[in-house]
Amino acid sequence: MTGALSPEDLSACPAPLADRSTITLAHGGGGRLMRGLIDRQFVTAFSNAHLDQLHDGAVVDVAGARLAFTMDSYVVHPLFFPGGSIGTLAVNGTVNDLAMCGARPLYLSCGFLLEEGLPLETLSRIVDSMREAAGQADVQLVTGDTKVVDRGKGDGVFISTAGIGIVEHDRAIGPAQVRPGDVVILSGDIGRHGIAIMAVREGLEFETTIESDCSPLTGAVLPLLDAGIDVHCLRDLTRGGLASALVEIAESAGLHISIVEEKIPVRPDVQGACEILGYDPIYVANEGRFVCFVPAGEATRALEIMRGTVPGRDATVIGSVAEDGDHVVTMTSRIGVDRVVDMLSGEQLPRIC
Amino acid sequence: MTGALSPEDLSACPAPLADRSTITLAHGGGGRLMRGLIDRQFVTAFSNAHLDQLHDGAVVDVAGARLAFTMDSYVVHPLFFPGGSIGTLAVNGTVNDLAMCGARPLYLSCGFLLEEGLPLETLSRIVDSMREAAGQADVQLVTGDTKVVDRGKGDGVFISTAGIGIVEHDRAIGPAQVRPGDVVILSGDIGRHGIAIMAVREGLEFETTIESDCSPLTGAVLPLLDAGIDVHCLRDLTRGGLASALVEIAESAGLHISIVEEKIPVRPDVQGACEILGYDPIYVANEGRFVCFVPAGEATRALEIMRGTVPGRDATVIGSVAEDGDHVVTMTSRIGVDRVVDMLSGEQLPRIC
Repeated sequence: MTGALSPEDLSACPAPLADRSTITLAHGGGGRLMRGLIDRQFVTAFSNAHLDQLHDGAVVDVAGARLAFTMDSYVVHPLFFPGGSIGTLAVNGTVNDLAMCGARPLYLSCGFLLEEGLPLETLSRIVDSMREAAGQADVQLVTGDTKVVDRGKGDGVFISTAGIGIVEHDRAIGPAQVRPGDVVILSGDIGRHGIAIMAVREGLEFETTIESDCSPLTGAVLPLLDAGIDVHCLRDLTRGGLASALVEIAESAGLHISIVEEKIPVRPDVQGACEILGYDPIYVANEGRFVCFVPAGEATRALEIMRGTVPGRDATVIGSVAEDGDHVVTMTSRIGVDRVVDMLSGEQLPRIC
Repeated sequence: MTGALSPEDLSACPAPLADRSTITLAHGGGGRLMRGLIDRQFVTAFSNAHLDQLHDGAVVDVAGARLAFTMDSYVVHPLFFPGGSIGTLAVNGTVNDLAMCGARPLYLSCGFLLEEGLPLETLSRIVDSMREAAGQADVQLVTGDTKVVDRGKGDGVFISTAGIGIVEHDRAIGPAQVRPGDVVILSGDIGRHGIAIMAVREGLEFETTIESDCSPLTGAVLPLLDAGIDVHCLRDLTRGGLASALVEIAESAGLHISIVEEKIPVRPDVQGACEILGYDPIYVANEGRFVCFVPAGEATRALEIMRGTVPGRDATVIGSVAEDGDHVVTMTSRIGVDRVVDMLSGEQLPRIC
């Protein structure tokens, strides 16, 4: 399901999924199908310089200040999982989108969509986890909204969180700034969030409990910027995993990204779970990992800074950028074979965030 | 259901609704029960100077600029109704929350929560209505998010919209600024949105089609501020109607608001529908109406300015503010009797916005 289909394989599909006339779960998977939906429906309708960048958030000028503005909805199932809850996701996910714009997160607003019959005690536990996460990420929840839908028209709780942050530097950060020769730094091991959710959802038991990596990334990002590192692009790895994030950047930047499989940290328990479940870790969701593109000459200093922080303590270089005409991502496997890595085409795990 | 229970009646309830342990549709009604939920769950957990004001949005300082920041989720059923759609609501509702902060709306972000099986054509129609509404309100949609939930775990489309706007004056606007002697100006006739939704939902037919009043209010608000009118408080009338908005303000301000029923504009077709359905128009939802509190001495000039605008062309004074110890709203009825107006206690029409 997440194998490495070549572009030829994909174009040979007789009836592309994207041509269906209704929304499928795969449209929410963070991969190719979602990207198509966003391009055709939203970018076409609302086209403007900010939206067209398809970044995790928009950076806008307001009265001389550079603000980052972002929004995410959270529909994770189940509501609680090892290492977090829909509440921790709803804070950290939006905090991380702001961090990926190179911004210091300041304020959040939350919209709660509650299903009739939800125990108030469940809501309290979620709110408690949000308060704790907001404290850790040093952001204030300043406004919000509550709606209730009839039983059977929701699923307990959905949360939408918007955030604003301040960009305290002049740097432009995004796929368009990626340059040939840049190195790709990954902030830590991948796949924990997806496997944690999958395990609790399917009642799987491993020797150890695999906890979600859900956490705020500002602690690793802001020191890079404060130190004046020439950060070209930042992207957190969520739905669609490392692979989909890199493919999106390669396509937007019009450059070739090559990564080396054995450089990508995957914990043995996560690797084992992936093998049992038939997943490739590079497609599995994360909620506390990001990639950072910097010039090769700054890689050592960037790594040093990141490794001095909690969210970046296992940071490592996993690849580099070159100017090939193909705009794809390739990965050198453990046995030395190069293969093209495509974006997740549909869904892997629905409602992972 | 929407009658004028006195505070004594309410306190005599043997088992207050608010003590139930699960979420009910009434928690989303915009009235007393929702206010209790917000106070107990959210304000307690996240208490800060911005949130505690319980205004339609927060006004925050960012790098020397005064920004308004707001968020609303939209779950209206059905998705399309005379005069609008969930898309027009999702733009105008958030634009109006910013306007009520005295801000010029600038940017929106939207989170789409789609149910598996939603026809893409339906989504396109909604997106088209949003594009049109955003153009009319002169705001840009700059970022967004899309999530898909399994069939039976949503209801077609829910939309969350956050907005940021700029406050271009030094004025503080909110219930705390309301003063004894202020007059209450209502921007136009009430009840159309609620009745429009009710009619299409229940298949009711009246002689004329009653269209929702859904529209952006900036056109009436910004000229007041630009003209230097000493605006004390602005509040748009949504769930819970005129009554709930005024009760919230009276309680927050610690003042008495008295209004005169025959001064409140209600179209004959809306009045007729309310009589058939057993509703009191002051509790029926609106999506393009607001109240404005100004000192009596500025009322004439404020009315003149508002009446020169499209959203305020039928503006009229409906009451005034006095310093009584009771902090309630009273209404003088058409037969000259004063009665206490309470907030909507639970739900009138679920999923009205």
